[in-house]
Amino acid sequence: MTGLPTHVDIRDVSMRDGLQIEAPIPLSAKLELLAAIAATGVREMEATAFVSPSKVPALADAADLAAELHNFPGIEFSALVASPNGAKRAIAAGLRSIEYVVSAADGHSRANVGRSSAEATAQIPEIVAIAHDSGVTVEVIVATAWDCPFDGPTAPQRVLDIVTAAVDAGVDRLAIADTIGTATPRRVGELVAAIRPRVGATPLGAHFHNTRGAGLASAYAAVGAGVTRLDASVGGLGGCPFAPGASGNIAVEDLVYLLRDSGIGVDVDLTAAIEAARVAQNAVGHDLPSSLLRAGDRILG
Amino acid sequence: MTGLPTHVDIRDVSMRDGLQIEAPIPLSAKLELLAAIAATGVREMEATAFVSPSKVPALADAADLAAELHNFPGIEFSALVASPNGAKRAIAAGLRSIEYVVSAADGHSRANVGRSSAEATAQIPEIVAIAHDSGVTVEVIVATAWDCPFDGPTAPQRVLDIVTAAVDAGVDRLAIADTIGTATPRRVGELVAAIRPRVGATPLGAHFHNTRGAGLASAYAAVGAGVTRLDASVGGLGGCPFAPGASGNIAVEDLVYLLRDSGIGVDVDLTAAIEAARVAQNAVGHDLPSSLLRAGDRILG
Repeated sequence: MTGLPTHVDIRDVSMRDGLQIEAPIPLSAKLELLAAIAATGVREMEATAFVSPSKVPALADAADLAAELHNFPGIEFSALVASPNGAKRAIAAGLRSIEYVVSAADGHSRANVGRSSAEATAQIPEIVAIAHDSGVTVEVIVATAWDCPFDGPTAPQRVLDIVTAAVDAGVDRLAIADTIGTATPRRVGELVAAIRPRVGATPLGAHFHNTRGAGLASAYAAVGAGVTRLDASVGGLGGCPFAPGASGNIAVEDLVYLLRDSGIGVDVDLTAAIEAARVAQNAVGHDLPSSLLRAGDRILG
Repeated sequence: MTGLPTHVDIRDVSMRDGLQIEAPIPLSAKLELLAAIAATGVREMEATAFVSPSKVPALADAADLAAELHNFPGIEFSALVASPNGAKRAIAAGLRSIEYVVSAADGHSRANVGRSSAEATAQIPEIVAIAHDSGVTVEVIVATAWDCPFDGPTAPQRVLDIVTAAVDAGVDRLAIADTIGTATPRRVGELVAAIRPRVGATPLGAHFHNTRGAGLASAYAAVGAGVTRLDASVGGLGGCPFAPGASGNIAVEDLVYLLRDSGIGVDVDLTAAIEAARVAQNAVGHDLPSSLLRAGDRILG
């Protein structure tokens, strides 16, 4: 632990990671959800992904959604991409911030994008050039940073190699992602400590799923170790809709509750986040795993 | 943080805190669940409570259950009591370990046992005498140690006063309980640090509910601050059965997963705990909030 930060930037990933495995919902319902999330005060949102529409039908409307984002000033919207072509499409659609995801594990990388981790890493400079030539911010997200569903535990050196390549390429931000929800606080602290020397002054984020119940514990460990940016989704969107109660991303409202009571400032209003979680639950048509959505805030004295 | 312990004692509270707000289930089903929990390797179990049968009908069979405990050698069974009379009944039923619960907040204390926190605290020496005269171990559990549903935040001094009275009376163990599931890691660390000087060498436990998603994060913070005993229930039993998905106690299997990956030894086998959670889910007839019961263990390499 290096002591807690005074502020953590929350990026709301409901619209992308939260919705991507749900059945597609109409653009109008997405915009209603987006408005509810915007009302939380959050400053950054992952709006969509520019990936194969056949692989992720729920996000096939990426360009149409992007065309509506100018209606929400004051929020930095980003889109996830997995290739130079995706980066170009995102920028053409008007996005000013992109995230390029690289799996640290070969098994996940091949299953996800059809190439090895090293091949995906080698494309970082091209992605950065595409983004920076258009004045667009670029973040590299290291997926399967702790474990891979095919390869098992990820060697920290594999994460370090991607971080090094990204920093050398001049990325604007970095993030490490617990793609399958297996991280625990000690392993989080260890990985963050291992990569921090290479991260340098580049803002470092972390992305957790609550699949095994330890998502909030891991997020808290991450901020204790030096992470200042956290991804979360309202309601904990992102779990498998066919496994009721299976947890997805850590829930924005649960995270805000924990950070507030830890004396850490955030831009997100707790009551508005609970309301946005309710909108999300209606939009997808099934229960979401959020705790605060059920229990509400504690009595403050 | 004072560094992590090498071992944490888990007390399984499924049979008492886990079942107390469920509809009563037959003794035979309880014994089946108890056997499944015993098979996890856990060394301590809270078996029941000797309280008013009209207030807690699910535990009205306390004496009948106690009569069966001799069939499970090697496990230390305890029972919760709220008065000297309850302590006598527990000991008469054969229990060799009792827990006396004292609410730090007056609102909760009056609602729960009809007397103030100070009045309940004043009975500690009598409870200790009753137990020790029979060679029975006694623990004082401080309920509403962080927040009260009626009074709001609990002043740490109120907890300290009970801890001091308990230590002065010669209790064998102490525990602090997050009765309504509002604790967060920083507040946990602060309270443990505040009471540790008075706790001295008395073993200190903590009891968390996952009501607001921070149960595991709080448990991890507690062990980091010097707690070496944690309560948990299989499946996360203990939530309100009428609010599907509402979380109860932290789940044994989720806790074991987190502690194992943190290099902390426990006596509980993870696979057997998941199986016991399945037995618990069948016994109560509704979904339980456990994460591992759905997601399973990660792939270990």
